Amino acid sequence: MTSSLLSAATHRQPWLGLIEQYRDYLPVNDTTPVVTLLEGNTPLIPVPSIAKLIGKQVRVFVKYEGLNPTGSFKDRGMTMAISKAKEAGAKAVICASTGNTSAAAAAYARRGGMRAFVLIPDGYVALGKLAQALLYGAEVLAVKGNFDTALEIVRSMAECYPVTLVNSVNPYRLEGQKTGAFEIVDVLGDAPDWLCIPVGNAGNITAYWMGFCQYHQQRKCDRLPRMMGFQAAGAAPLVNGKPVTHPETIATAIRIGNPASWEKALAAQSASMGSFHAVTDEQILDAYRLLASEEGVFCEPASAASVAGMLLVKDQIPTGATVVCILTGNGLKDPDTAIKHSNSQIKQGIEPKILAVAEAMGF
Amino acid sequence: MTSSLLSAATHRQPWLGLIEQYRDYLPVNDTTPVVTLLEGNTPLIPVPSIAKLIGKQVRVFVKYEGLNPTGSFKDRGMTMAISKAKEAGAKAVICASTGNTSAAAAAYARRGGMRAFVLIPDGYVALGKLAQALLYGAEVLAVKGNFDTALEIVRSMAECYPVTLVNSVNPYRLEGQKTGAFEIVDVLGDAPDWLCIPVGNAGNITAYWMGFCQYHQQRKCDRLPRMMGFQAAGAAPLVNGKPVTHPETIATAIRIGNPASWEKALAAQSASMGSFHAVTDEQILDAYRLLASEEGVFCEPASAASVAGMLLVKDQIPTGATVVCILTGNGLKDPDTAIKHSNSQIKQGIEPKILAVAEAMGF
Repeated sequence: MTSSLLSAATHRQPWLGLIEQYRDYLPVNDTTPVVTLLEGNTPLIPVPSIAKLIGKQVRVFVKYEGLNPTGSFKDRGMTMAISKAKEAGAKAVICASTGNTSAAAAAYARRGGMRAFVLIPDGYVALGKLAQALLYGAEVLAVKGNFDTALEIVRSMAECYPVTLVNSVNPYRLEGQKTGAFEIVDVLGDAPDWLCIPVGNAGNITAYWMGFCQYHQQRKCDRLPRMMGFQAAGAAPLVNGKPVTHPETIATAIRIGNPASWEKALAAQSASMGSFHAVTDEQILDAYRLLASEEGVFCEPASAASVAGMLLVKDQIPTGATVVCILTGNGLKDPDTAIKHSNSQIKQGIEPKILAVAEAMGF
Repeated sequence: MTSSLLSAATHRQPWLGLIEQYRDYLPVNDTTPVVTLLEGNTPLIPVPSIAKLIGKQVRVFVKYEGLNPTGSFKDRGMTMAISKAKEAGAKAVICASTGNTSAAAAAYARRGGMRAFVLIPDGYVALGKLAQALLYGAEVLAVKGNFDTALEIVRSMAECYPVTLVNSVNPYRLEGQKTGAFEIVDVLGDAPDWLCIPVGNAGNITAYWMGFCQYHQQRKCDRLPRMMGFQAAGAAPLVNGKPVTHPETIATAIRIGNPASWEKALAAQSASMGSFHAVTDEQILDAYRLLASEEGVFCEPASAASVAGMLLVKDQIPTGATVVCILTGNGLKDPDTAIKHSNSQIKQGIEPKILAVAEAMGF
């Protein structure tokens, strides 16, 4: 144990959140009140068992966005959206969401001293999905009609009343989300060859492409990745080339029939020579289980679409390539799917004796 | 946007997990196979609203251990325990646990290519608590008898068969856990004045004290903190001075009547001039809600005992002191408590009209 080693090991700048880290690349200035939970800086975890399924000396990493403060990549956009809302003097924010967006909006709004209104369709009763937002202090309003009605109303409310809209149309969301690309380059030293990403509303693929292009322009990376977008087969408008009226998939976070960032996502795909593909729920669940049981990484079902998709088109991956798959959310967000779709079983009623237990263990 | 600023902002060493980061302080060598999910490096989040309740220019931070890969501080000990098991050639590990330990053991064992056996008392049916471990590929055995029976059996199994015990008696667990103290000093530049921590099995308070002392000895910090341990009132053996036969509290992660590290925890308390106190479930839930709704931090109920305890004895905190509260686990681990104990409510049946919604919002 030499003292030079010790000091080398421990001199680290503390991470102050993504706005402080990437301030020069973001639309903030010295007077912007930064509302942060120290989001970002999520681990880029090597997944060697999965890389082995591809072979060809391919390196595969997963960007585990589930370790953001509220458990999903939405925190990246929300620290920006809420800081800018506070800068503009907002006292309340509003969104229509039953999932990760509502949790992130509530956490950051409350931390910034604002009220957080969440609109949902009336009759929607999956309390589990809203538990997190409610604990953060969200004020949830269930409005008669469907999700589109709720979305229309939050837009109108933001126009007519002093509340800031933090749904995906808020332009600062993508600005925050693009920092995921910066972090990947900062760790790898360059952009990966492929970026595999789940595509629902298509905002995140747009944001990552923005990030890589901006870094490339600033000569922080030499190459640009192919943007590989993966949709659930039952909710694949970008693959089919037309909106899906009744999207259906177990991957609820990407169950979207008419993505808000459709055009931008197509532009990213085409400029990067990437492509879009659909993966079945079966393939998504296989990847979900594989990530957990071989690599120890527990993600939301929607997140696993990136890994499922990569495995689907693995023959196209060049030898020696570096691939990054984005895992958008934490598996703890959806315990029901974990219970329902685990392959493991509980052996019950075992006698409390060494030999009986050893036999049950297969020894 | 100057180029010097840009390079300053982005030159960061990637975090390679706590064993790589603190290798010189840990019982590993160059041939130890490091099994890591890049655990550690958890955010130290300032909580100004809570500090305001204390006043006296006190600074308060929470160490949000829920952002470890499996959602709790157990990952710190498990990366060490599993790496050492692999080094010793183990093909399987075993523990008795129904909570965070089983999840961490399963994730790291599977990542290390080992089988993971989890013993639980038969008849224990809270599948939700085990969902995570099952998805990671744990092999769960339900043995007739109570939790003590299960614990006895895993100890015997580890003696008689080639399986490594990774329950809290595994000495490498505390070695890994002590790195939480290192991280706090590395961020603050010194140890805090007070370290507030939930106490169940008393291993974590022991580990933090080890870490602070070791860093102090190496002159990485000038001071040592007062170790303030907080137990749930219904499970407070260290406060009462005797074991509790039927411990009861909503904070399940610290519902322990006869802590394994009893003597070591007492030694830490006495050497640091700290103290132990009991907090009621009511106080724990108040702190749990406060953290979420004022600071945007969602933790397990047991974690909130540290903040509840600090507020209980706030009159003893010196003016201008720096206090760190350890939040041991992620709130997403226990969605039922979030649903049951949130103060927020859903307003239902609202007409889909601007005025009706505005009225519901109080505008």
